[in-house]
Amino acid sequence: MAIRLDDRAPDFEARFSAFLTTKREVSADVDAAVADIIADVRARGDAALHDWTEKLDRFATRTRGLRVSEAEIDAAVAAVKPEVMDALKLARDRIESHHARQKPRDDRYTDAIGVELGSLWTAIEAVGLYVPGGTASYPSSVLMNAVPAKVAGVDRLVMVVPTPGGEINPLVLAAARLAGVDEVYRVGGAQAVAALAYGTETIRPVAKIVGPGNAYVAAAKRRVFGAVGIDMIAGPSEVLVIADRDNDPDWLAADLIAQAEHDKAAQSILITDDAALADAVEKAVEHQLAALPRGAIAAESWRDYGAVILVESLDAAAPLSDRVAPEHLELAVADPEAMLARIRNAGAVFVGHHTPEAVGDYVGGSNHVLPTARSARFSSGLGVLDFMKRTSILKVPPAALRQIGPAAIALAEVEGLGGHARSVSIRLE
Amino acid sequence: MAIRLDDRAPDFEARFSAFLTTKREVSADVDAAVADIIADVRARGDAALHDWTEKLDRFATRTRGLRVSEAEIDAAVAAVKPEVMDALKLARDRIESHHARQKPRDDRYTDAIGVELGSLWTAIEAVGLYVPGGTASYPSSVLMNAVPAKVAGVDRLVMVVPTPGGEINPLVLAAARLAGVDEVYRVGGAQAVAALAYGTETIRPVAKIVGPGNAYVAAAKRRVFGAVGIDMIAGPSEVLVIADRDNDPDWLAADLIAQAEHDKAAQSILITDDAALADAVEKAVEHQLAALPRGAIAAESWRDYGAVILVESLDAAAPLSDRVAPEHLELAVADPEAMLARIRNAGAVFVGHHTPEAVGDYVGGSNHVLPTARSARFSSGLGVLDFMKRTSILKVPPAALRQIGPAAIALAEVEGLGGHARSVSIRLE
Repeated sequence: MAIRLDDRAPDFEARFSAFLTTKREVSADVDAAVADIIADVRARGDAALHDWTEKLDRFATRTRGLRVSEAEIDAAVAAVKPEVMDALKLARDRIESHHARQKPRDDRYTDAIGVELGSLWTAIEAVGLYVPGGTASYPSSVLMNAVPAKVAGVDRLVMVVPTPGGEINPLVLAAARLAGVDEVYRVGGAQAVAALAYGTETIRPVAKIVGPGNAYVAAAKRRVFGAVGIDMIAGPSEVLVIADRDNDPDWLAADLIAQAEHDKAAQSILITDDAALADAVEKAVEHQLAALPRGAIAAESWRDYGAVILVESLDAAAPLSDRVAPEHLELAVADPEAMLARIRNAGAVFVGHHTPEAVGDYVGGSNHVLPTARSARFSSGLGVLDFMKRTSILKVPPAALRQIGPAAIALAEVEGLGGHARSVSIRLE
Repeated sequence: MAIRLDDRAPDFEARFSAFLTTKREVSADVDAAVADIIADVRARGDAALHDWTEKLDRFATRTRGLRVSEAEIDAAVAAVKPEVMDALKLARDRIESHHARQKPRDDRYTDAIGVELGSLWTAIEAVGLYVPGGTASYPSSVLMNAVPAKVAGVDRLVMVVPTPGGEINPLVLAAARLAGVDEVYRVGGAQAVAALAYGTETIRPVAKIVGPGNAYVAAAKRRVFGAVGIDMIAGPSEVLVIADRDNDPDWLAADLIAQAEHDKAAQSILITDDAALADAVEKAVEHQLAALPRGAIAAESWRDYGAVILVESLDAAAPLSDRVAPEHLELAVADPEAMLARIRNAGAVFVGHHTPEAVGDYVGGSNHVLPTARSARFSSGLGVLDFMKRTSILKVPPAALRQIGPAAIALAEVEGLGGHARSVSIRLE
């Protein structure tokens, strides 16, 4: 059973605040081990990759090669059922056309006094994409990370994926092919992150590393940050559903469970003004959990972190949701647009009764890599801008320098930076 | 003397590669001390702030108050010379009008099959701005951080600044007033970062912390990252100047020195195809250093990290510069636009002979908070987007769900996520 909160209760604010700060993830302290692995890869390159892969993934890249060949990818693509391949293509196309709209435009202009300014956007030259192995090896995640990189114009998109015991998910290779990934290596963990950041004989270094991973991968990304860019470190997933009385409890229960099945640390929250609906949804959750393949995981998530929040009026829902700043927010209410206008902090909003969050995970077109753990207060989902950078342009003609130069000199002088002042004044003499 | 490289030398590639990986900063290991301070502020709030400020800044905030009053800011503004105030206002206005162009537009549209998608931008609600104390307390830096935040629409912009012995730079308070900072607190170091991240009785928490600081501040920002957003951790500053033969060596020398005077770990690089110009610039640097107030610092930077790179042809300059990915790049060549078109990795480019980097530090209008230490390969200077976040919108009408829902179900099933599949299929029954 999820916890139940009621905003009419006198202790609501205290309980809601405590709920907000609940930690859902115990991060294993793997930093020392990761530091050793990174140092080894930097020192020994490919040899270190072979050794760590043999030890941790029980696979001999020394004889089989680090790189996944085009022939292997061809074989993987051939092994995927046509209807699944079609679904991947639909997803790829929809992600591509949505993200194409995110491409920023260069801005170059001359201001009133003749100074030329500008912001020029360029793609990052080379990006590494980490893909987990085993059961968390999701083709949809490959598309969500790789397609925006290619839309941005990344020249060299390099995927790494561990292949424990030599096993690789053919769907992941098919997704890589569809998304335009340029190189694939069968290496994972901190050793793969180190190879991407610093390079080895076989793997040339990249400038940024994205993609999800376990505690070792996350720790390695934190360690190499600075040498390369990294994306956010994703925490367990969450959904918040705001629902009025006119809802099918089974639909809402299905959405809460879909989130909960990800991980026992996932979180599903329902906010409603209708106590009868709340009861019906809780009953439907229990009922559906019994029939679900991943029911045990979902049940644990719902029991430990799930919440049903009863509010006197749905007017209270948007401000409460903003404090949660959910990764996913579903608006299952009569006038979702009016409520959307009041929402400030959310990774993605799913509007109306026929937009379950899961459709956004695959084929909606928007990205499913979204800010978790309340970070939607200050960050955005993955997008094209994460694969580009902006260069400022400044061009001051002599007449304009005479106009604004003296102010620069005055400020440099009060800041005690005589060399700065001199570099301007020497051009005004 | 700076090092001299020549791309005609057989060992050029080896020497240039080594030059690229030179570490310029020894980061002090203050992490344990910072962890203690943060834990103390979380546990004891204001009391901890008072104690640490008394101990580290020799100032009794317990009696004088943590918040800098409006009357104190009024007095600081009154103490600033009118011509300096005018220079700050010019800088503020120019930064504001340039950054206003960076505001992203919302995008909401309906695609060919009737799915509504969108990207909605909102400002971060509350942001903390760290301002160093003492000699590194720069009013220009206050403007460069605060103005974009206010342009973005941040509701609550909170400045913290240490006041060692009670001293505060009135220019910093004047800049804060001009930029629209909402609250100012006289507290610094890791304790200030902790207060901004977690809140105390007096300082309400923010969602993101920006601004430069010493090793303690940098370590504290790394530690609180996740609970709040942070900006990049800035390293020592650098400039790369590409110059053809038609240059005044004194001008170029002044620009190289302006960068070097920041910090003995700063870096100034000249790339030219003219050996005579290179010699003349080196001579001019030595000459100008003697007359500079911060000459000793600049001389140390130039000696330890400065470089003059001779190239056979200036065609080689852009690719070399891209490998450096300089924070600041000056193009002092006959056709700077042609060279600009070949540049990919640079924080900011200063185009033509009358655009010394220092004009961009103050009154150009573009931001002077830029990616250092080769991070322009993957990141951008500070801008309005750093104070906003994007929420994805997805709205699927029933007919469109019938069209794309089956693909979502197929992908959820091959990923082993039955709950995801169910949340879509239940709406198609």
